[in-house]
Amino acid sequence: MYSSKCSYVHYVYAPDRHLGFFMAAKADLTYMQRALALAEKGRGKTSPNPMVGAVIVRAGKIVGEGYHRMAGSDHAEIAAIKKARGKTKGATLYVTLEPCCHVGRTGPCTEAIIGSGIKRVVLPLKDPNPVVNGKGIRHLRKAGIEVTIGVMKKEAALLNDAYLGYYYLNRPYVILKTAQTLDGRIAARGGDSRWITDKESRKLAHELRAEVDAVVIGSGTVAADDPSLTVRHVNGSDPYRIILTGSAKIPPGSAVITNNQDMKTILVSSKRRLSRISRAGKSKNLILWEVKTERTGLIDLKDFLEKAAAFGLRTLLVEGGARLATSFLKANLVDKFVAITAPKVLGEGIEAVGDLEIKKVSQAIEFDNPKFVRSGRDMVFVGYPRRKK
Amino acid sequence: MYSSKCSYVHYVYAPDRHLGFFMAAKADLTYMQRALALAEKGRGKTSPNPMVGAVIVRAGKIVGEGYHRMAGSDHAEIAAIKKARGKTKGATLYVTLEPCCHVGRTGPCTEAIIGSGIKRVVLPLKDPNPVVNGKGIRHLRKAGIEVTIGVMKKEAALLNDAYLGYYYLNRPYVILKTAQTLDGRIAARGGDSRWITDKESRKLAHELRAEVDAVVIGSGTVAADDPSLTVRHVNGSDPYRIILTGSAKIPPGSAVITNNQDMKTILVSSKRRLSRISRAGKSKNLILWEVKTERTGLIDLKDFLEKAAAFGLRTLLVEGGARLATSFLKANLVDKFVAITAPKVLGEGIEAVGDLEIKKVSQAIEFDNPKFVRSGRDMVFVGYPRRKK
Repeated sequence: MYSSKCSYVHYVYAPDRHLGFFMAAKADLTYMQRALALAEKGRGKTSPNPMVGAVIVRAGKIVGEGYHRMAGSDHAEIAAIKKARGKTKGATLYVTLEPCCHVGRTGPCTEAIIGSGIKRVVLPLKDPNPVVNGKGIRHLRKAGIEVTIGVMKKEAALLNDAYLGYYYLNRPYVILKTAQTLDGRIAARGGDSRWITDKESRKLAHELRAEVDAVVIGSGTVAADDPSLTVRHVNGSDPYRIILTGSAKIPPGSAVITNNQDMKTILVSSKRRLSRISRAGKSKNLILWEVKTERTGLIDLKDFLEKAAAFGLRTLLVEGGARLATSFLKANLVDKFVAITAPKVLGEGIEAVGDLEIKKVSQAIEFDNPKFVRSGRDMVFVGYPRRKK
Repeated sequence: MYSSKCSYVHYVYAPDRHLGFFMAAKADLTYMQRALALAEKGRGKTSPNPMVGAVIVRAGKIVGEGYHRMAGSDHAEIAAIKKARGKTKGATLYVTLEPCCHVGRTGPCTEAIIGSGIKRVVLPLKDPNPVVNGKGIRHLRKAGIEVTIGVMKKEAALLNDAYLGYYYLNRPYVILKTAQTLDGRIAARGGDSRWITDKESRKLAHELRAEVDAVVIGSGTVAADDPSLTVRHVNGSDPYRIILTGSAKIPPGSAVITNNQDMKTILVSSKRRLSRISRAGKSKNLILWEVKTERTGLIDLKDFLEKAAAFGLRTLLVEGGARLATSFLKANLVDKFVAITAPKVLGEGIEAVGDLEIKKVSQAIEFDNPKFVRSGRDMVFVGYPRRKK
């Protein structure tokens, strides 16, 4: 499905190791850091565009800055140029991703940059989107603008991990999320899981939903928890709700079925299984995806991801349960892992991750760029599974 | 063994909740913070004394400071007074624990404070050691010194958690440590556990050993890992090595048996079991402790802790394996939990904590004052199990 020959595949997993070494000037780092902080402000609102921030500096002073607020609004470069009110002549532009050179919903940024009299552009990395992919840089250089590439590339790659991952992997970017105890339990023995994590973390989980195109869960989780999978507690639009089910059996009163006014519930199963429910499914406005199954009866996840890509989904959030998490990890199809860990111990219970057929610690799945962030009483781990060569 | 009526029992678990509210002046906070930072420098070297730091301030300037470097050396107050070289008249002393009023290996601090002309003493909390326990404060007040109690009491209580816990609980303070993966595994399925955590964390584990009087493990761990339980990679003296064993069967070539030149290996089992090995044990200079066993054949942990207290041990580090960890947690005998978590996932394997007979998330063991500290690529969790009322 995606070529392992592509040198970019490892990019968003370990940007620091695969991008080579780049030594940036101190001033460049300072302004790029500011541009990255601005970009971050667009989180959850820019899809399908990346988050981008821009800072314009002339004679050691910031004369304009901006960021991409949401899809359809000004690109960061344009916002910054507007803010600079003509003070751009001879200035340096710091922008967190290669400027576009195509006419999208807004005009091409390279034209605006050239027109503004900016004489130098500093950026961390190329935009792998095939409509840009180096063309923006070439356009600027042709116009005589000095372009410095590589400043804070790691930070910039991590900022837009899902956006970049989508283009590099040529399939939807898969984020696995667990809400667990210190001892790796996602529920007590009987299945009780409300609430392991604290309020602030549950809000964070909703923020994550707002950032992705679809939330993916197994039918077991639908039966056990009856989640609505909508975005609450924060602003943001609801993602698609994808239920992977070997059996195509879902309690008809489930929230994902009954609250489907937005027609965003997608049922994924084998042709044979889906045929049983297709009439009932249609009457509920469910979207049905037929996928291949493995010999074990489990859904072929690669085939599922191809269907999701064809449907236009770029980022998926796998929320549970344990069986689905295990399947994605085992298939080497998790691109980012977010483990929200509560300061609690449950002892025996439902484990976050099941059998991965690992026999030695040296075979464990390791995570690159591990980050631990406090969330209320909890700790949030974010990491990128290291691909085995 | 310890009275639950004692209002101090909850002290080191949730100092902020059980000590009431205290509003400190800003300057007092600043200097106490400095004193706490100084106290911390003695970590691992002051046992059986607490870590203590002291700062002397006159006319808004620090004129002297010090800390307790190791048992037998100057107390922090004395060190600070010496450093102040006579500039103590009318000054304020910030000290992180109630000054002593008894003649230990050094003279009583209260006499020195009174003699120095200090007119105000600021401290976070009483020293619960029965030879002090408020007498120091009374002594100072009788001499006309103003004493402010309560400044940064939470931080001070956490700093000396084990020292305070020993006196409040009237038994050795029990620290449980795990080295685990994100999904709560301490070893792969076959038992392989080298190395889950990274170098820096393993150094930290040795620092922990240097801070306690004894390390406690189960005989299963001796058989599986053959640990030497000595302090390496850092300075510090080796703790006692306690092996709890229902069967009193330990491979005779184990490091804890063969490297017993310091005669610090203690074997704990039932009378019946120990009788089998007493001759062999004596020839190896092993210390043998007979303890009661439960109906299940497992060691009675309360009886074990009484033996340890009678032996003079104040702090125990329970290092594994999973069964021992589970037993201590289940018996409500863990006072502090340190979970070193590596950014790895193993899937099915040996779980950090086994069956605690918990059926609902609301019954989970919660940890107060949860702290997450980065250690190399790993994350170290530190928390205090909340006692159920």
